[in-house]
Amino acid sequence: MQSRRQFLKYAGVGGAALAAVGSGVLSFQTLAKERPADAPAADHNAPGSDSANAEEMDRMHEQGMLAFPAPTAAQGLQPLEHTLEDGFKVFRLVARKSRWEVEPGRVVDAWTFNDMFPGPLIRVTEGDRLRIIVRNELDESTSIHWHGLKLPNNMDGVTYLNQPPIAPGATFTYEFTARNPGTHGYHSHHNGVKQVPMGLAGALVIDPQDSRRRYEADREAFLFLMDGTHGYTLNGKSFPATSPITAHLGERVRLRFVNFGSMVHPMHLHGLHMEVVEKDGYALRNPYDCDTLCVAPGERYDAIVTADEPGQWAFHCHVLQHAESEHGMFGMVTVFDVA
Amino acid sequence: MQSRRQFLKYAGVGGAALAAVGSGVLSFQTLAKERPADAPAADHNAPGSDSANAEEMDRMHEQGMLAFPAPTAAQGLQPLEHTLEDGFKVFRLVARKSRWEVEPGRVVDAWTFNDMFPGPLIRVTEGDRLRIIVRNELDESTSIHWHGLKLPNNMDGVTYLNQPPIAPGATFTYEFTARNPGTHGYHSHHNGVKQVPMGLAGALVIDPQDSRRRYEADREAFLFLMDGTHGYTLNGKSFPATSPITAHLGERVRLRFVNFGSMVHPMHLHGLHMEVVEKDGYALRNPYDCDTLCVAPGERYDAIVTADEPGQWAFHCHVLQHAESEHGMFGMVTVFDVA
Amino acid sequence: MQSRRQFLKYAGVGGAALAAVGSGVLSFQTLAKERPADAPAADHNAPGSDSANAEEMDRMHEQGMLAFPAPTAAQGLQPLEHTLEDGFKVFRLVARKSRWEVEPGRVVDAWTFNDMFPGPLIRVTEGDRLRIIVRNELDESTSIHWHGLKLPNNMDGVTYLNQPPIAPGATFTYEFTARNPGTHGYHSHHNGVKQVPMGLAGALVIDPQDSRRRYEADREAFLFLMDGTHGYTLNGKSFPATSPITAHLGERVRLRFVNFGSMVHPMHLHGLHMEVVEKDGYALRNPYDCDTLCVAPGERYDAIVTADEPGQWAFHCHVLQHAESEHGMFGMVTVFDVA
Repeated sequence: MQSRRQFLKYAGVGGAALAAVGSGVLSFQTLAKERPADAPAADHNAPGSDSANAEEMDRMHEQGMLAFPAPTAAQGLQPLEHTLEDGFKVFRLVARKSRWEVEPGRVVDAWTFNDMFPGPLIRVTEGDRLRIIVRNELDESTSIHWHGLKLPNNMDGVTYLNQPPIAPGATFTYEFTARNPGTHGYHSHHNGVKQVPMGLAGALVIDPQDSRRRYEADREAFLFLMDGTHGYTLNGKSFPATSPITAHLGERVRLRFVNFGSMVHPMHLHGLHMEVVEKDGYALRNPYDCDTLCVAPGERYDAIVTADEPGQWAFHCHVLQHAESEHGMFGMVTVFDVA
Repeated sequence: MQSRRQFLKYAGVGGAALAAVGSGVLSFQTLAKERPADAPAADHNAPGSDSANAEEMDRMHEQGMLAFPAPTAAQGLQPLEHTLEDGFKVFRLVARKSRWEVEPGRVVDAWTFNDMFPGPLIRVTEGDRLRIIVRNELDESTSIHWHGLKLPNNMDGVTYLNQPPIAPGATFTYEFTARNPGTHGYHSHHNGVKQVPMGLAGALVIDPQDSRRRYEADREAFLFLMDGTHGYTLNGKSFPATSPITAHLGERVRLRFVNFGSMVHPMHLHGLHMEVVEKDGYALRNPYDCDTLCVAPGERYDAIVTADEPGQWAFHCHVLQHAESEHGMFGMVTVFDVA
Repeated sequence: MQSRRQFLKYAGVGGAALAAVGSGVLSFQTLAKERPADAPAADHNAPGSDSANAEEMDRMHEQGMLAFPAPTAAQGLQPLEHTLEDGFKVFRLVARKSRWEVEPGRVVDAWTFNDMFPGPLIRVTEGDRLRIIVRNELDESTSIHWHGLKLPNNMDGVTYLNQPPIAPGATFTYEFTARNPGTHGYHSHHNGVKQVPMGLAGALVIDPQDSRRRYEADREAFLFLMDGTHGYTLNGKSFPATSPITAHLGERVRLRFVNFGSMVHPMHLHGLHMEVVEKDGYALRNPYDCDTLCVAPGERYDAIVTADEPGQWAFHCHVLQHAESEHGMFGMVTVFDVA
């Protein structure tokens, strides 16, 4: 993974507008105070002056941005492999305690599926028959709710309503047909108020069988939103450890939003706009355009961005406490990079 | 009211998918840990083991679910009777202190209309002339705002803007014509920040005169959302004391959401989906489908659910803190039961 | 600015419905308790009686309403003048510390653009070439993000991503063409989590060049929503210091909502309804009607209200804690006055 310094250099190759800012970090030194030639050199030591603090604040802001995208161990939402058995696509999930690097040096005790946070991406096609074998290696019972899916009631995952809990050491097998296309998810539905923010949540996409129901897009990117136990995270990482969304000029990028946190996150995209085409996997009869999309807990949205302006565009939650501190940007922040 | 044990039994009669889980609570015993025959029997007493806690947690989860729907004294939103006088439908509301059982054994001091929380359902037809006589038996002044209604300004209920407060012991008569159909509500607009969460809020529905404006639906159900003083409640009750929403397979159910709390509540329906047809009583020119509907304070939504999959589907706020604890589900949780 | 007492008198001239309540404040004395002639005169001194408190509460509620619209020093969002140079419309903004009267007697230390909170309204036409010269007179660095605008990447204002910070004493010049019409805004994007709620935020409107893209409206009004450091404010003021929105009967008023706070604000309009026509400056292909519009941080909405019912209609955030206390209404409250 490249550092922000390298990233800027790379990005600078791509577009005219980027050239102005992408020629190196030196172009980003703080604009000097305009000071008459005969003024005393150091007024920031005068009583009441905040200059030293201001410079330190700038330095911290710069460090965060230069570090982006900061390397961390492992990525969440990696595609989960399957085998084929008896006409089923067979997936295996193991719930267990793991360590997860949310941002450089901040490694947390997470409860994960397959040692990932968010859990692996399960991706199938409408009509597929799925068998998902879940083994619980935690110290307490768990279960999985297939959030957004149409399925038989006894596969829905709410303990004592739809199934028994999966005790520590036990295994449960879910079987159902992928019926309704869209961006969905999965998460614990047993002591979920603790288990979900600890990390037991992932994404599940059902691609439509009919290609006419697919949107024209050159690329896609997830924005899996979590808050709570591990802080404000995008795809399991906090800025500057988040990954940029990249596109070539003119490409169309499909964004898949999933919020399994406990707060609304109005995601604001700078310089470009989003055409919102699906909510919870259901096509909107009339898509709408926006630059700020508020995603509530449990909701999913699909949106198309046409990368029609080159540059590195900030993309972050506009609840500023989820994205910024006096030390610079953090949390639910990434960059949409059009080169 | 039947217990969850009876409920399951009943539900089990209905559908094939339910049969798998509805044959009795024994099917829900926690899946046993797979243990080699020669393993020590009791590893849950080993240092650092959480097995005892895990089992206790499961037991509490089970108890909550088995208790559903738990009987409590009285129900809110009961239809308010009217008399006919001078061409008016005359309704009577009395604001007074009362006791309200939110969940089994938790009886709170509530401020109510007609001893109900939420207050009674006022249901009329577009064009009806209404006279609503409000008597205040509280220790402080109050008033009623008819939330969402088009009416003369001096009937709107904001004290000192539209009317004097109704002092303790006093009576005020509201008169207006029901003009705009839809799911609306009413609540105190005097010291409302205290009086509303204490319980002075109810639902008001104006049915359209033109039956072509009515949606085809076999049943309907309210989801009256409150948070704050009495906790997270659905129609005045906290799970397991909430009532299930029931439907026969294939029926269409109209849901009427009203949020008079102070937080957004993204209501997530498992296994089925909602077609959102009205907001604040105004028909959407393009309805949209979803499984998670975020209802903000003051908003109302009408949605149609086609009960096309049998079973007992969890239906809850996806801010997990409003729906779950380590002791199991509570608060804004119910079951959509398709039999 | 006229006091509420004068305001009522004025309003009372206008409409039939108002006549009933607008004849003077005396009509608003608290409705007397109905007391039998032989009852003891003063039961509010009896043990356990809250009458004295209730009367004091009413008095405070009345005082707040009578004071509306309460005069305070200065108004935010005043139109910013420009000069013409080299084909550019040239605007000048100065970020500096200032004092701001949020409500009568509550004067806060604010960080402002041009001594206003919110900052001045920048209003231009699609296609205009803008040059905005920003001088920083604060003790720490700053920058400006043009929220919602399509522009070259190095003009977007995120420090160390798009530009260097503007140090104390320094000046930065932004140049770009106004491309996408709509209700937008601008705010600091350096230590924004502090600088924005301190006051470094304003509104920017790009009117469409094609008049067919303009909505038919007789008037317009902003609802610039802020929370945090200076409390809950509408256009920089807290009720009763907010300004009423006024219209003649039958007029159409365009509302422009901007939320740069950190919470959702579901704005509820009494007695009238809103047709939501744009989100983030993008026309909705299918506008929708509502009486409660939930505006999340970073979002903008445009809505049209037809003033078809005379009277003074409360208009407030329905998170009641943002609008009411036991002392009466405050914060995000105003009156939509149809005369």
